[in-house]
Amino acid sequence: MLPKVGTTRLCCEPFHSDFSNHLKLSVLGNHLLNCTEQHAAARGFGMANFNGESLTWVLSRLVVEMESMPQRDEWFEIDTWVEKVYRLFTDRNYAVRNQQGQVVGYGRSTWALIGMEDRKPIDLVSMHDGLLQQYTCPEQPCPIDKPARVKVTAAEPERSITAIYSDIDINGHVNSIRYIEHVLDLFSLDYLREHPLHRFEIAYVSESYFGDVLDFYVDHTDATHCQVEVRQHKDQSVVCRCKLDFK
Amino acid sequence: MLPKVGTTRLCCEPFHSDFSNHLKLSVLGNHLLNCTEQHAAARGFGMANFNGESLTWVLSRLVVEMESMPQRDEWFEIDTWVEKVYRLFTDRNYAVRNQQGQVVGYGRSTWALIGMEDRKPIDLVSMHDGLLQQYTCPEQPCPIDKPARVKVTAAEPERSITAIYSDIDINGHVNSIRYIEHVLDLFSLDYLREHPLHRFEIAYVSESYFGDVLDFYVDHTDATHCQVEVRQHKDQSVVCRCKLDFK
Repeated sequence: MLPKVGTTRLCCEPFHSDFSNHLKLSVLGNHLLNCTEQHAAARGFGMANFNGESLTWVLSRLVVEMESMPQRDEWFEIDTWVEKVYRLFTDRNYAVRNQQGQVVGYGRSTWALIGMEDRKPIDLVSMHDGLLQQYTCPEQPCPIDKPARVKVTAAEPERSITAIYSDIDINGHVNSIRYIEHVLDLFSLDYLREHPLHRFEIAYVSESYFGDVLDFYVDHTDATHCQVEVRQHKDQSVVCRCKLDFK
Repeated sequence: MLPKVGTTRLCCEPFHSDFSNHLKLSVLGNHLLNCTEQHAAARGFGMANFNGESLTWVLSRLVVEMESMPQRDEWFEIDTWVEKVYRLFTDRNYAVRNQQGQVVGYGRSTWALIGMEDRKPIDLVSMHDGLLQQYTCPEQPCPIDKPARVKVTAAEPERSITAIYSDIDINGHVNSIRYIEHVLDLFSLDYLREHPLHRFEIAYVSESYFGDVLDFYVDHTDATHCQVEVRQHKDQSVVCRCKLDFK
């Protein structure tokens, strides 16, 4: 049996950093998802293992809280492990260590495993004779808050976009990470220079597709906190909700 | 002295593929640029080596021609080498090999090395006692056409975007690769499903910045060929020109 915690070593490539010379949150988000799949696949419960059963993991929530982001050319490591298994969801956590081995941030995610055809969730506790539970590691520290409940009251959207080629993943949906990019794109460089992002939470509610028009409603709670709700323009149904804490 | 050709092994990560399950061209483009910097830095002429001299490499042209794109979870390798050194430009080529070791595509790029302050190009032939020339490797095959001259006649833009946070790199410019994403975003999934991209050329003419409105003018030469010119909305000055060949 492999260790419960999986570790991946990565580099902040020159073309993965933003205007401030730090790793883009969207690139880190992609790394977290890729580390998730690597960790799970190596232990028998990755998407690669379930292709025959027509099952797929669906990301329900993601929280990333960083004290500092890796800078360009710096190496860093991502640890990931399963914190807990519920019947329909599993919590998976992350720790990010910088080149000096110091933990510089943590992440939390919640996933469901669903049938590709019927989109119904699988019982994770009993799945494959409790395989997933064998790897739970609740003792591993992840000292950041669980995601909060987000409620946005803004009456008008701050921005609208149409989902296009770059947004779409293999399932025909807008890629989970692209929402993070689109939400950060609501802010000016001047604002982000003064207020680096500290924590980003996202809860995925429903899928969106190529050609969908998405409205971004924003509540600016105070100078360094805001909440964003992304809705389908056509029927105002909620696609995802985010909470951002800046420094 | 290190070998003239540098090789990097990469994987098509699950979250780096597009709707068709193939590596996104923009991700491949980022890989090519990162391989460039790794190759150059290891041999003493990367951006990392020139920081003290306040010099930076600037990408002038990029061509990528792929017979097939790596698919999700496939490993692939990128070779890169310097083809030729001119006084103000250097040509660098790429070959992409799939998991079975077959070459599945090539790339060509042209770079200048400029002063960060005065933006003037450095003489590459004499630079560092001809260091760059020691690594030229004109005999290495790169059997794809050099870039063509692009001339777009469309009278109206097909799309306009405003450059935002995700577009901007450390120099405050729109990132070279983001133009590729924006250009591919002109096409529908239906079109791209029928006509996978075969070749993409881009020539960079001038920089654009946060907040700039960019107009995309498109000539659809025929069913599988088109040319795109990106212009500043404010004064219609050209930012870059592209040529796309689909299958």
